[in-house]
Amino acid sequence: MGTRVGQKTVRFDKMPIILSTAAVAGNAEKTGPYGSTFDIVFDDDLWGEKTYELAERKMLIKAIETAMAKAGLKPDDISYLLGGDLLNQIISAGFAARQLGIPFFGLYGACSTMAESLMLGAMIVDGGFAKYAACATSSHFATAERQFRNPLELGTPKTPTSQNTVTASGAAILSSTGDSTYPAVTYATTGRVIDMGINDVNNMGAAMAPAAAETIISHLEETGRKAGFYDHIVTGDLGTFGSELMLRIASDAGYDMTANHLDCGVLIYQGNELMHCGGSGCGCSASMLCGHFINSMNQGTIKRILFVATGVLHSPTSALQGESIPAIAHAVSLEMGCGS
Amino acid sequence: MGTRVGQKTVRFDKMPIILSTAAVAGNAEKTGPYGSTFDIVFDDDLWGEKTYELAERKMLIKAIETAMAKAGLKPDDISYLLGGDLLNQIISAGFAARQLGIPFFGLYGACSTMAESLMLGAMIVDGGFAKYAACATSSHFATAERQFRNPLELGTPKTPTSQNTVTASGAAILSSTGDSTYPAVTYATTGRVIDMGINDVNNMGAAMAPAAAETIISHLEETGRKAGFYDHIVTGDLGTFGSELMLRIASDAGYDMTANHLDCGVLIYQGNELMHCGGSGCGCSASMLCGHFINSMNQGTIKRILFVATGVLHSPTSALQGESIPAIAHAVSLEMGCGS
Repeated sequence: MGTRVGQKTVRFDKMPIILSTAAVAGNAEKTGPYGSTFDIVFDDDLWGEKTYELAERKMLIKAIETAMAKAGLKPDDISYLLGGDLLNQIISAGFAARQLGIPFFGLYGACSTMAESLMLGAMIVDGGFAKYAACATSSHFATAERQFRNPLELGTPKTPTSQNTVTASGAAILSSTGDSTYPAVTYATTGRVIDMGINDVNNMGAAMAPAAAETIISHLEETGRKAGFYDHIVTGDLGTFGSELMLRIASDAGYDMTANHLDCGVLIYQGNELMHCGGSGCGCSASMLCGHFINSMNQGTIKRILFVATGVLHSPTSALQGESIPAIAHAVSLEMGCGS
Repeated sequence: MGTRVGQKTVRFDKMPIILSTAAVAGNAEKTGPYGSTFDIVFDDDLWGEKTYELAERKMLIKAIETAMAKAGLKPDDISYLLGGDLLNQIISAGFAARQLGIPFFGLYGACSTMAESLMLGAMIVDGGFAKYAACATSSHFATAERQFRNPLELGTPKTPTSQNTVTASGAAILSSTGDSTYPAVTYATTGRVIDMGINDVNNMGAAMAPAAAETIISHLEETGRKAGFYDHIVTGDLGTFGSELMLRIASDAGYDMTANHLDCGVLIYQGNELMHCGGSGCGCSASMLCGHFINSMNQGTIKRILFVATGVLHSPTSALQGESIPAIAHAVSLEMGCGS
């Protein structure tokens, strides 16, 4: 059962635990500073498949299967798969669900989808509707780039504020039972759609920063927690420019997060200047959460994080029709020592 | 709190009620046999907007606003908006959420989205996470046709098995409290993704029929109910051909639903031969449920329906890449005399 603690935030009274996670990633991610934290990596973007779309689907299936295997579970044990991706009609998730045969809730929150799936999954498990639920997302540079921007063959140069769609997938298995040695989902703050009039589709960080700031501030206000309560406030994929902007907006509102804010988009390619402002895509925050961050919690090096996945909800059609870029951010509080 | 009664089915122990609904529809729907059941209708596909996409967004916003007004609620009273549509990146729902300012869960289940939103909304409300949640979807002939099939200007003839995307939207407000004079959400059966190898994108009914049959049969088996328990088993948009196929599959499995099965896609344009096999789209089942069926329950002419929205989870890209069409169906049991 849940308890509302504010306009946007609920507490999970039974605190579902994250029983296992898995992350799958491509070559650029493998050779980055967090390469060793992914369970499965591969070298070329096709991963032995005929199309990039099939390679993306394979990542998502492998991530879910690996997370299930770590938990000793089979598809029949999982009541619901909650997932999505960036592709039109979320075909990666839909076809993955076809192969796995798990009752399926398709989600679309763009790059915020991993947090969306964890929030809804935790509500389902906490509400007594499932013992186990799988939450998963994926993105792939080659499928996203040609769908959202330009044909790959064009070799379009990138602008300084651009981010690189991460080729990766992350999956987490939520469970209604488990002791305090597992990370627990304790609070969820669901974002509103925020649009500050940004219309540069190569500057997603700027579009998402106000949404991230609003959701984080709402979370802190509604839970009565200070930013320093968390080892890290982990945003999804604001990138370097968007992170600066988010920290400035938060600072102007009286919240200083400079000491403990991290951004998955900044981290995943850190040191690689070809990636400009960093990584983006559903798979960015999903693979960093389901790899590095959950691993660190399980190893005891960090105890509490606020996971804030951020997404833009425009489409190529809406951009061509002159619309600005609406954004959303969802925050999930993950804590050790709380599972029931 | 929920109770699992089977592999795919849960019971809502507190049985959230449908406090209010509203439906908005275009001209072809207005002039059909259920035209008088829609709250708002309009004559031309643009509805005073510059683009069809803006007209679709306006439908969705008007449906949600009308449902809220009927319940005497404002956006701030609603904890979550759960919604989606057929457009790439579900821009109708995303931009509607921007305007309404309600914390937003974006969903994609193609034409099954209305049932998906009701299931997740009911879990959220039943689990104590919200007092009120809004569930809404939309579709528009002109936006869907050019995205999924051909440019409108081409005037492509339709095949005999084709269905017409319905220009309509439906919205429902779920509430945690309400007496037994309101329709209550009592059970939800969540579908798996089923693919029988159909690859004709002009024959969606055939692709969805096996998924609908499986979900309905699972629902009846897991709840121990007979098909005749319901006044109507209402599928979303199988159309005439898909309905026949579904009834035959069910009959072969020992379930006779010929007496009480209805299909929203068959009903909405009944008598209009230009519409071939009938209507389809998220807005088809949403507007028929939120108009005719809920009205009939509130008026006492029917007491129990199983609402089974059906969707196909392919994309133009997956079809061009030679994939067959995966389908899904979700069933929600709606009953009078159960609200708490």
